[in-house]
Amino acid sequence: MEFYNALNWRYAAKKMNGEAVPQEKVDRILDAIQLAPTSLGAQPFSVFVITDQDLKERILPIANGQTQIVDSSQLLVFAAWDEYTEKHADEFIQQTAKERGLELSDLTAFKNYLESLTKKSKEELFEWSAKQAYIALGFGLAAAAVEEVDATPMEGFDPSKLDALLDLRSKGMRSVLLMPLGYRDKQNDWLAPMKKVRRPKEQLFINSEVGELV
Amino acid sequence: MEFYNALNWRYAAKKMNGEAVPQEKVDRILDAIQLAPTSLGAQPFSVFVITDQDLKERILPIANGQTQIVDSSQLLVFAAWDEYTEKHADEFIQQTAKERGLELSDLTAFKNYLESLTKKSKEELFEWSAKQAYIALGFGLAAAAVEEVDATPMEGFDPSKLDALLDLRSKGMRSVLLMPLGYRDKQNDWLAPMKKVRRPKEQLFINSEVGELV
Repeated sequence: MEFYNALNWRYAAKKMNGEAVPQEKVDRILDAIQLAPTSLGAQPFSVFVITDQDLKERILPIANGQTQIVDSSQLLVFAAWDEYTEKHADEFIQQTAKERGLELSDLTAFKNYLESLTKKSKEELFEWSAKQAYIALGFGLAAAAVEEVDATPMEGFDPSKLDALLDLRSKGMRSVLLMPLGYRDKQNDWLAPMKKVRRPKEQLFINSEVGELV
Repeated sequence: MEFYNALNWRYAAKKMNGEAVPQEKVDRILDAIQLAPTSLGAQPFSVFVITDQDLKERILPIANGQTQIVDSSQLLVFAAWDEYTEKHADEFIQQTAKERGLELSDLTAFKNYLESLTKKSKEELFEWSAKQAYIALGFGLAAAAVEEVDATPMEGFDPSKLDALLDLRSKGMRSVLLMPLGYRDKQNDWLAPMKKVRRPKEQLFINSEVGELV
């Protein structure tokens, strides 16, 4: 679907119908998530793609019984890193040098930026990496809409329980967002017929000039 | 441009050429930002649209001299709210009731959710609202690419100095992101010819099944 029509078509489906999203559409949505920009290009998160129905059933109560979890065909779990290791930095530098045909010595300044990440506390690193995951969520939601696939961004779950279920803490990750992929159940979703409500542009956007400064 | 081609075409331009982005393209990019989903639909941020060259010049040193600030035609400043007031909640409820043709009594549960936001500390509210701004940034960046407009997401600035310059704290806001809109200077941007580097899909995405759980 054309981009702006797609953004108007999309909404956060509250009830999905269980129909499966074709793999080629899923792949394009994951492409968009992969292409999302992040601070320093570091992509400090992982995305779990869960199709196993048993696992979705176990996540359902952790996500307050939101039925899109089990009525989606793919449940994406965005897990932000709470540590950026020397190994992460090294792999990224090596990949950058290789793909851009550069010497490692060309990347000294960049390496220093990445090294600074390895020195951050877990809380600092997590706050920063979680935000990067939100940009990627945005790209994924826009792509899903273009594919005419429904996707419901969710913060409403218990991250500590999901982290325990997926054993995320030992991997240096914490769950931050869920995004089930599926199709709206038009008959049974109370939100489906509702008008999209957004703050008016004249409130959301503020034109600022130097003359107005205090 | 077609959506996926656009995502591949875009990059974080490091040098812009000073050419102005037509207003109709800017308007569509702002449409996308307005349409971005947010937690509870609350859109807890404001976006400053700065075209005044004098003001951009004053922001330049606050953003480490990144020249896209002054070579863009529009500089967007995403400012996340650090308080969600009764007035915010009330306006949102009134607008929702009106646009959806509902009674206020139909929205009691929703009102309670919004009321809970008014009780959060400034730090808690800010962390949550900043993340919502990152989703909108994602939508804005994707839209800019579709419009073949360059946009450079920036965290590299001094938020406290920018907050002081734009008098944001007194408005219950804090700057979190910059996004200049303009056109890449292909000859003079070192990044323009470089390959886009992204973590391989087999690392970024993890297929998880219940059998793998510890």
